[in-house]
Amino acid sequence: MNYNNIYELAKSWTKEAGENLRESLKHKIEVEFKTSASDLVTKKDREIEQFFAGKISEHFPEHMILGEEGTVANQEYIFEEAQVWVIDPIDGTTNFVNQKMNFAISVAFYDQGEPIIGVIYDPMKDELFTTLKGQGAFLNGEKIEQLTAVTVEEALISLNSLWTIPNDKVDEKKVYPIVEKARGIRYIGSAALEIAWISVGRLDAYVDFRLSPWDIGAGIVLLKELGGEATTLAGEDINMKDTNTTLFSRPGLASEIRNYFN
Amino acid sequence: MNYNNIYELAKSWTKEAGENLRESLKHKIEVEFKTSASDLVTKKDREIEQFFAGKISEHFPEHMILGEEGTVANQEYIFEEAQVWVIDPIDGTTNFVNQKMNFAISVAFYDQGEPIIGVIYDPMKDELFTTLKGQGAFLNGEKIEQLTAVTVEEALISLNSLWTIPNDKVDEKKVYPIVEKARGIRYIGSAALEIAWISVGRLDAYVDFRLSPWDIGAGIVLLKELGGEATTLAGEDINMKDTNTTLFSRPGLASEIRNYFN
Repeated sequence: MNYNNIYELAKSWTKEAGENLRESLKHKIEVEFKTSASDLVTKKDREIEQFFAGKISEHFPEHMILGEEGTVANQEYIFEEAQVWVIDPIDGTTNFVNQKMNFAISVAFYDQGEPIIGVIYDPMKDELFTTLKGQGAFLNGEKIEQLTAVTVEEALISLNSLWTIPNDKVDEKKVYPIVEKARGIRYIGSAALEIAWISVGRLDAYVDFRLSPWDIGAGIVLLKELGGEATTLAGEDINMKDTNTTLFSRPGLASEIRNYFN
Repeated sequence: MNYNNIYELAKSWTKEAGENLRESLKHKIEVEFKTSASDLVTKKDREIEQFFAGKISEHFPEHMILGEEGTVANQEYIFEEAQVWVIDPIDGTTNFVNQKMNFAISVAFYDQGEPIIGVIYDPMKDELFTTLKGQGAFLNGEKIEQLTAVTVEEALISLNSLWTIPNDKVDEKKVYPIVEKARGIRYIGSAALEIAWISVGRLDAYVDFRLSPWDIGAGIVLLKELGGEATTLAGEDINMKDTNTTLFSRPGLASEIRNYFN
């Protein structure tokens, strides 16, 4: 199958959606709270998801949509048998609201379970990360080089501090070696951006324990294309129908990080 | 005393130094290690400090220089009696090396112990934060509004994960409530930038347990000018002759954060 048409449209729609978000930050943002004071959603999350849903149903009526906001109803499909767009309209909504930067639109296309297209756009930096499987990865059209190996001691690792204190997903003591051995720990607050930053060497790994498919759908395509790792913490394929533990990284340090959790 | 001349020169030298750093990132960076694999210094750290030292001794031969790299020798002075420039030539050297972004030049001027001028420049974002005490704070020449109060629940708080695992500066359990209650934890990896970001609302507080005067000299001037907090964790004035525990924040949440440590 030729995916070029889908790829071009995915890039163009994502840029258009990003322009909308950039423009919207000139005005006041209306915030709602989903489950707690730290679980925000804005009108824009839903609006952008609906924008993609409209475009997709117009051009590809047979495609399914897996979106964070769940605004597309009446879909019944088996992920491994369908053609599915995996969309996070605003990844890093809290940053969108509080920082007015450091958020991204994440758009991926999976064909019968296979990761094919990944597009991540940071509208405030105007950085567009794009991949079509087998055709290379690009930042604003410029080819990104294959990732080379680093050690944990040389690495900047992205990690949410939540996982270093008692929590219900992981024994925090198993996380300590990451913090102790890494050159530094960083945290942006947008999974799509943490992964995009690995692709260009600004970060070297990103460990998380509760990510949803839409957070990482595009990042998986991007890192795999560059020879990076994109697996569960156990080294298995990420399950696109559930939340996951995840390890995204350049080559080299992934096996060391995995060992901390055995 | 009229500080306008010093202020104008501080801004102009900092911009010039930032241009130098931006340009240097087009070439390979030579890295040395100070005490460990995570304690980096580059030729550029020393070169930029020397650039400031040269300019200052030319224009203000009676001024002293307190710089991270300690390249200025043969100074004897009492901080509370002298006119002192407090300079971090590259705050966030690890980011400079690994990310090629998210570092800053931090330049402050203290007159007999009193914080007078603060200049923080992020050369990659081209963001210049400037303050002359009593004259307002500015981002790229545009006046920054006075900071308003927020609660911890609404706050993005900057925190190095080092302090959430066992360490020799603080009982990590006392840090847990910050992570549990904040809307989110972030960490850029440049103290000067974490503070500059508070000034424009991208972050709401920054807690650290081991900062040196040059990391924060300019940030103190900036936040105080905007009605923010810039104290030790005990609420005392920051000691410019030693490392410090520090709490930088918008109004409102500082006392709550301090209470966690009592």
